[in-house]
Amino acid sequence: MADGQTLPSWRDGAAKSAILDLVARVTRQGGRDFVPPAGRIATFDNDGTLWCEQPLQAQLLFAFDRVAQLAADDPTLRERQPFRAVLEHDYNALFGLGKQALFELAFATHAGMTDEAFEQAASAWFGTARHPKFGRPFKQCTYRPQVELLAYLRENGFKTYIVSAGGLDFMRAFAAEAYGIPREQVIGSSVKLRYEVSDDRVSLVKLPELNSFGDREVKALNIGLHIGRRPLLAFGNSDGDLAMLRYTKSGSGLRLALLLHHDDAARETAYDREFRLSPLSEALDKAQDYGITVVSMERDWNVVF
Amino acid sequence: MADGQTLPSWRDGAAKSAILDLVARVTRQGGRDFVPPAGRIATFDNDGTLWCEQPLQAQLLFAFDRVAQLAADDPTLRERQPFRAVLEHDYNALFGLGKQALFELAFATHAGMTDEAFEQAASAWFGTARHPKFGRPFKQCTYRPQVELLAYLRENGFKTYIVSAGGLDFMRAFAAEAYGIPREQVIGSSVKLRYEVSDDRVSLVKLPELNSFGDREVKALNIGLHIGRRPLLAFGNSDGDLAMLRYTKSGSGLRLALLLHHDDAARETAYDREFRLSPLSEALDKAQDYGITVVSMERDWNVVF
Repeated sequence: MADGQTLPSWRDGAAKSAILDLVARVTRQGGRDFVPPAGRIATFDNDGTLWCEQPLQAQLLFAFDRVAQLAADDPTLRERQPFRAVLEHDYNALFGLGKQALFELAFATHAGMTDEAFEQAASAWFGTARHPKFGRPFKQCTYRPQVELLAYLRENGFKTYIVSAGGLDFMRAFAAEAYGIPREQVIGSSVKLRYEVSDDRVSLVKLPELNSFGDREVKALNIGLHIGRRPLLAFGNSDGDLAMLRYTKSGSGLRLALLLHHDDAARETAYDREFRLSPLSEALDKAQDYGITVVSMERDWNVVF
Repeated sequence: MADGQTLPSWRDGAAKSAILDLVARVTRQGGRDFVPPAGRIATFDNDGTLWCEQPLQAQLLFAFDRVAQLAADDPTLRERQPFRAVLEHDYNALFGLGKQALFELAFATHAGMTDEAFEQAASAWFGTARHPKFGRPFKQCTYRPQVELLAYLRENGFKTYIVSAGGLDFMRAFAAEAYGIPREQVIGSSVKLRYEVSDDRVSLVKLPELNSFGDREVKALNIGLHIGRRPLLAFGNSDGDLAMLRYTKSGSGLRLALLLHHDDAARETAYDREFRLSPLSEALDKAQDYGITVVSMERDWNVVF
C-alpha cells in the first residue's frame, strides 16, 4: 500500500504504515478486522492537529479583534481586566487565566448574537485576518498531510469529525472549505442558546454562559453525545486529547490513536510541555504505555503546509 | 411528479404535493430555489411521527420492564412512588407527573450502565417486547409512509435526522434498522455521562442526572448544537414539535413544516388534545397561522404500517 501515491505528504515510517495498515484491514471484506462503513468513525482535534495553534488559537485572535471593536464603543474596557490584557496583547497574563477561562472569555464576546449573525462575522474575519507568524490567511495554515489523511479516510468509507475544545460555531465557519468536514460533523465547546421569537421569526441567540467546554474527558463524552460510537481512529496533539485517544484505543478490535508532536522549528514551530495554554506533556510520557502512535512533524511529514 | 411511483403509501393531496414540490424545487440545478446537498437537512420527531406512541412511548415501556426487574431484587420498590404506579400500570398517576418527569424516571432506571451495556439491553428488549395494542414487535410499528418519505428524501440528497424528546441511546438501538438513520443522526434527550477508567479500559457511564430534555424549544436548540443548520423540512405530531416547526418555517427560502394528525381510529388511534403526556393542541390551532401543513393519517396515507 505504501505506493508513493497514497498520502504523498507523509514520509514512509511507522506512523504512515500504521495508518495504511488500519485502513487496509478494516476495509477488507471478509477479513478478520473488517468494519462496516457505519462503524468507520475518525475524530480529529483541530487546533495544533489540523492547523496551527501557535502563537495562539485562531478563535482567541478572532475574539481579541472583537474586544477591540467593543472597546471602541466602550473605552472603559481598556481599564478593566481581562480586557486590558487582551487589548495590550499581554499573553502572559492571559495564559495565567487558564485554557477554559480564556476560551470562555472568547465565547462571551459574541453573546447576544444569533448563530447566523455569528457565522457571518466569523466568515468575514477569515476573509481578512492573517496568521501573525506566517502572514497568510488562516485557512492556508492547515496541514497538508492532515487534509490528505482526511480525504483518504473518506475515500475508504470513514466519516471524519472534528472533536475540539474550540467553539463549535467558529469551526463550522471554515471546516467544510478547509477540511471537507460538514458542519454537523464538527463537535466542540458550546455556549447555551436561547430560542427567540421576534417579528414572528425564530432565531437561536448565543448566551454568555458555557454549555460545554469540550476538552480532555469531555471530548470522549461529546463523542458519546454526538456520535454514539467509539472512533476507529483518533488524532490529537496535546494533553487535552489524551482522554479521546485512550477512549479510542480501549475499544474492541483494531483501533489507532495518533499524537502529533510539534518538533519542527524550521517549517512550523517546536513546542510541547512549555505551551502553557495547551501543553503536550502527560500524553507524550504515556503514549507508549497506552499504545498511542507519536507522529513527528519533522520526520513523518514531507511537507507541512 | 405525482406519478404513482413516488411515495406510493401517500395519497394524492395537499400534503403529498407540498412534499413533492419542495423536493423538486430544491434539487433543480440552476433553479431559483436550488439548495446544495449540504443544506438539505430534514428533521423528524420520533414518537407519534415515525412510529406509534399510543398507549405509551416504547421507551417508557422499556423502562417499566426495567423497574420490574429492579423490584425483583428490591421488593421495597413496590411500596414507593413512583415505582408503585409503574408496577401497577397506573398510567393516570404516572401521567400526572408530566412528560419530562416521567422520561427522567425512565432514564434514571438505567443509571450506572455503560452506553455499550445499555445498547445491548435495549437491543435485547426489542427482540422480545411486543406492542401492547398491536401485538407485534415495536420495530413493526413504524409508519410505512414515513419510512418511504425518509428514503425518498435521502435519494434526493437530504440528510435525515431524528429530533426527539426520547432518549438518544434508546433510539440509536433501532433507528438504523427501522428508518435507515445512522446513530450520529439521532438527536434526543440525554443524561450526563461519566468518563470511567477501569482495568485500563475507558467507558462512558450513564449518570442519574439529566443533561438535556429534548422537547419543545430544546428541539430547536439541539438542532443548533448537533447540526448547526436550519432544516429545510421538519415533521412532528404534537405541541412538543411546534418550536422545531416554527424554527424551520422561519428560515429564508423554501421550507416545509408538517404535522401529523392521528385521526385514524380504524387503522391506528385517533387522539390529539386529550393525550395528556404529549398533546396536540396549540400546534393544531396555530398550524395555519404558522404555515404548517397538517397531514391527516386517515386521508393522506394509503396504508399506515
